[in-house]
Amino acid sequence: MRFISESSSRGVREQLFDLGGVPGVLWTPEGPAGPRPLIVMGHGGGRHKKDPDIEGLARRLAAECGCAVVAVDVPGHGDRPVDEEFDRIATGNRARVEAGEDLAQLIAEFQALVARRTVPEWRSVVDAVQRLAHVGAGPVGYWGISLGCGLGVPFVAAEPRVRAAVLGLGGASASAGDAARITVPVEFLLQWDDERVPRAAALALFDALGSAEKTLHANPGKHAEVPAVELDSTVRFFARHLD
Amino acid sequence: MRFISESSSRGVREQLFDLGGVPGVLWTPEGPAGPRPLIVMGHGGGRHKKDPDIEGLARRLAAECGCAVVAVDVPGHGDRPVDEEFDRIATGNRARVEAGEDLAQLIAEFQALVARRTVPEWRSVVDAVQRLAHVGAGPVGYWGISLGCGLGVPFVAAEPRVRAAVLGLGGASASAGDAARITVPVEFLLQWDDERVPRAAALALFDALGSAEKTLHANPGKHAEVPAVELDSTVRFFARHLD
Repeated sequence: MRFISESSSRGVREQLFDLGGVPGVLWTPEGPAGPRPLIVMGHGGGRHKKDPDIEGLARRLAAECGCAVVAVDVPGHGDRPVDEEFDRIATGNRARVEAGEDLAQLIAEFQALVARRTVPEWRSVVDAVQRLAHVGAGPVGYWGISLGCGLGVPFVAAEPRVRAAVLGLGGASASAGDAARITVPVEFLLQWDDERVPRAAALALFDALGSAEKTLHANPGKHAEVPAVELDSTVRFFARHLD
Repeated sequence: MRFISESSSRGVREQLFDLGGVPGVLWTPEGPAGPRPLIVMGHGGGRHKKDPDIEGLARRLAAECGCAVVAVDVPGHGDRPVDEEFDRIATGNRARVEAGEDLAQLIAEFQALVARRTVPEWRSVVDAVQRLAHVGAGPVGYWGISLGCGLGVPFVAAEPRVRAAVLGLGGASASAGDAARITVPVEFLLQWDDERVPRAAALALFDALGSAEKTLHANPGKHAEVPAVELDSTVRFFARHLD
């Protein structure tokens, strides 16, 4: 784990790092050493580890809950090079959608493919970050919607250190099997007028989650229009489950 | 409005009253006079105005949000006499269910019938309670699930003083038209494994609400198993919208 830069603002330290070619960012509250809760955040499609939505919520979780928060670029995103395999598939998918194939199904299959790479990457990130004195081996949470849900479901299913997750804006097409293996508390966000994820597929993914404690929060609006009040709910959810 | 008894506990005053033959209870925070927010609570089927779930939440809303809270017995419930018309219909419905008719549809039709009586009763209660110096003419909220939703949807649709409502555990069978006329913020509770309200009917009622700002909170469990964390959410919802 190689640290590239460090800065600090309003009580939260930000460190950019590289872990075996995976660029990442770690936010931690200034103050005593760990162990403290660690939340892994998965960014959306076409976004990156320091997307304003990611950074804004990460800084709140650090400042208000005392959590460490880590996010890394997904292959082909942010500071990572173009991934030729994924790029070729994405180009092919655009042609298949134009030829009438189901977009949601293609997205789900693509995310399942990417997850085979990101799940081990993210597990290594948790290993490395929890070895830092200012993080330590506390409880782990996961937050990811849209692409962050498609990649997050297999990650949460595979990683026993994760104790609670916020997921959403994703469908059951490819990940229902992984979802059934998730048993930790989940808060699941659904946009009622989502133009990218069919409502029935999103409800089916919530239904498929194996967790005894799970809650669906559905709000009107399109894919990118999750209301701000859900951020408050997310902060409370992690405070409740990672304390 | 005739007051019958008064008591006080942990900063909350409780007054039992009768308004034209409708028995009710009013909880208010001790302290300065109104105006303050007023929340009308509708109890569930077979329950009554001082059901422990009603009283527990009412006392929290009074103590934590400074609200006045009022609940009255629905016809045929609590301290009201048996209502012969409703009793005859309920008996007939039991026979119709045994004969194979759809329970949810019969419940919805019955609730729509009862609502023709409760909507004007509840509007008179708001009139009377808001004339009290320790309540005053502040913003009004409504809380009701199950029967309290079936009766609450037509009440909220008809009463322009209501500015926010918590509803749920109800289906769209009879009240979709009223739901479409509701435009205030709504928090809607749905039990994922509800044995009394079909999931599709509950989702359809949420869908039918005309409100631009509405949020669906769905949790695993049967009709009567709404998790306690939703009470916290309800308190925050009213604090946000009736302040």
